[in-house]
Amino acid sequence: MYDLIIIGGGPAGLTAGIYAQRARLKTLLLEKEIVGGQIAVSDVIENYPGFPPISGAGLMEKFEQQARGFGLEIKVADVMDIHDEGRRKIVKTSEGDLTNKAVIIATGAKPKRLGVLGEKEFIGRGVSYCATCDGPFFKGQRVLVVGGGDTAVKEAVYLSKIASKVYLAHRRDQLRAEKIIQEKAFATSNAEMLLSHVLKEIRGKTGVEKAVLQNLKDNSIKEFAVEGVFIFVGINPTTDFVDVEKDEQGFIKTDQNMQTSVKGIFAAGDCRITPLKQVATAVGDGAIAAFMAEKYIEEIG
Amino acid sequence: MYDLIIIGGGPAGLTAGIYAQRARLKTLLLEKEIVGGQIAVSDVIENYPGFPPISGAGLMEKFEQQARGFGLEIKVADVMDIHDEGRRKIVKTSEGDLTNKAVIIATGAKPKRLGVLGEKEFIGRGVSYCATCDGPFFKGQRVLVVGGGDTAVKEAVYLSKIASKVYLAHRRDQLRAEKIIQEKAFATSNAEMLLSHVLKEIRGKTGVEKAVLQNLKDNSIKEFAVEGVFIFVGINPTTDFVDVEKDEQGFIKTDQNMQTSVKGIFAAGDCRITPLKQVATAVGDGAIAAFMAEKYIEEIG
Repeated sequence: MYDLIIIGGGPAGLTAGIYAQRARLKTLLLEKEIVGGQIAVSDVIENYPGFPPISGAGLMEKFEQQARGFGLEIKVADVMDIHDEGRRKIVKTSEGDLTNKAVIIATGAKPKRLGVLGEKEFIGRGVSYCATCDGPFFKGQRVLVVGGGDTAVKEAVYLSKIASKVYLAHRRDQLRAEKIIQEKAFATSNAEMLLSHVLKEIRGKTGVEKAVLQNLKDNSIKEFAVEGVFIFVGINPTTDFVDVEKDEQGFIKTDQNMQTSVKGIFAAGDCRITPLKQVATAVGDGAIAAFMAEKYIEEIG
Repeated sequence: MYDLIIIGGGPAGLTAGIYAQRARLKTLLLEKEIVGGQIAVSDVIENYPGFPPISGAGLMEKFEQQARGFGLEIKVADVMDIHDEGRRKIVKTSEGDLTNKAVIIATGAKPKRLGVLGEKEFIGRGVSYCATCDGPFFKGQRVLVVGGGDTAVKEAVYLSKIASKVYLAHRRDQLRAEKIIQEKAFATSNAEMLLSHVLKEIRGKTGVEKAVLQNLKDNSIKEFAVEGVFIFVGINPTTDFVDVEKDEQGFIKTDQNMQTSVKGIFAAGDCRITPLKQVATAVGDGAIAAFMAEKYIEEIG
């Protein structure tokens, strides 16, 4: 029996692990895929305080080393369900049931699909949700990036160094990204902004050949010859397995103590409703969640 | 005229500076004393994710470099008052008035005094609130540490490496510190725990010679020969200069967006009501405060 189970091995989960181990809680961190979470596939992080530009994978390796250094146990397992029995929580995983006193959910969030024709068909054959993973396949080719937020614009700039031409299509008439990121994109000679444009269809034979876009200003339709389509239109939280209060998108509601609607179940990082999803905010969440979990465990005795 | 003024150059303020500069806000950070805040006088930080044990000063130097690298302007000035004129805030400083659109308060908090006889008299002559600053003066001598939280117990362990003997007096019958820190203290051969003990008086001629303690279990009074007294009994926020909603101790009330009771005035880090005061939580606060300040500034146009 563990005191605490942390679900998810991204910045929030690993920070919770560091704090839980320092508080001498018997803690297990469960990760479904790779430790580091979404951030581990990020090209460069330059706004996590204390670090010069560093790769997401490199930063997460440091987090993991530190957490393991404090004795954190990490296992690969998929969580299917959490049974709340008050002072005991049963975490049902692909590797069996785990009984414990408190749970921290730090499962993050995953990229949203657009749902346009050809998208699903061409995943892995031209359609991608990760520039760092798939960008290098498009060397000297043309790509379309869809989205207007930080990730979309950053990744468009990143892709412009690999691809011969980058189109950035966003449905609104201005981008949402940080201004410093926007400026970089606008200063990129081989990047072309297609504002007020939506992707309608992705066409091709064995791989992506054309992106069909609609200009929302005059409703005209135009085909763009591209070999790749990168989609960055938001994220969905990974929270289906847990029955706590959430918003309509599935992000978990918590108070400032990271406490969810169920006592002893805490949430931290991108999977909860939070104004900003950054490594800096995830670590704050993770530290608080572990601190409050320890208080809760002492309270229930 | 600046877009944003950040008051305080600790982890929260510097992180806000990084995010504000990246968002292309015309930003000025005001610091009263030394950049880095309370953390800059901390011996070792080992729970800021991503870093192996590092000195507080060393970590804050990295924060400052990064913030300056993004073009953050930093000035030394004392803030006396903030006039809220809606879309304009006038920050009254020792260097003159500054007009701007939004303010982030990240002034942190300062050590509390005990208020016992001899305390004030012997400040700088044996009484201290900072082990890193003053510890080395007590090489081979005996010191008393007062308090039972993380800081008190950590600093007792730190002082045990310098002093010949460390007494740790705490008024409760158990310590409040993280268990990992407690274990270190209990394993320190020249540290002696005085639980259920309160300091009544500090005595001496030109410097500290004796600490008078009361045992709360039997009310007995005992004198301990010590040359130094280190007091770690909590902190007071530095928030007198601003008229926003606060708790009875002066910590600023905010929502999850770091918004105070006055629109356009945000608070981040130790100066606000928060469940945990750590570098990890301060950076989360600072990032959110800057992000929300930018949204606010765009909103007021």
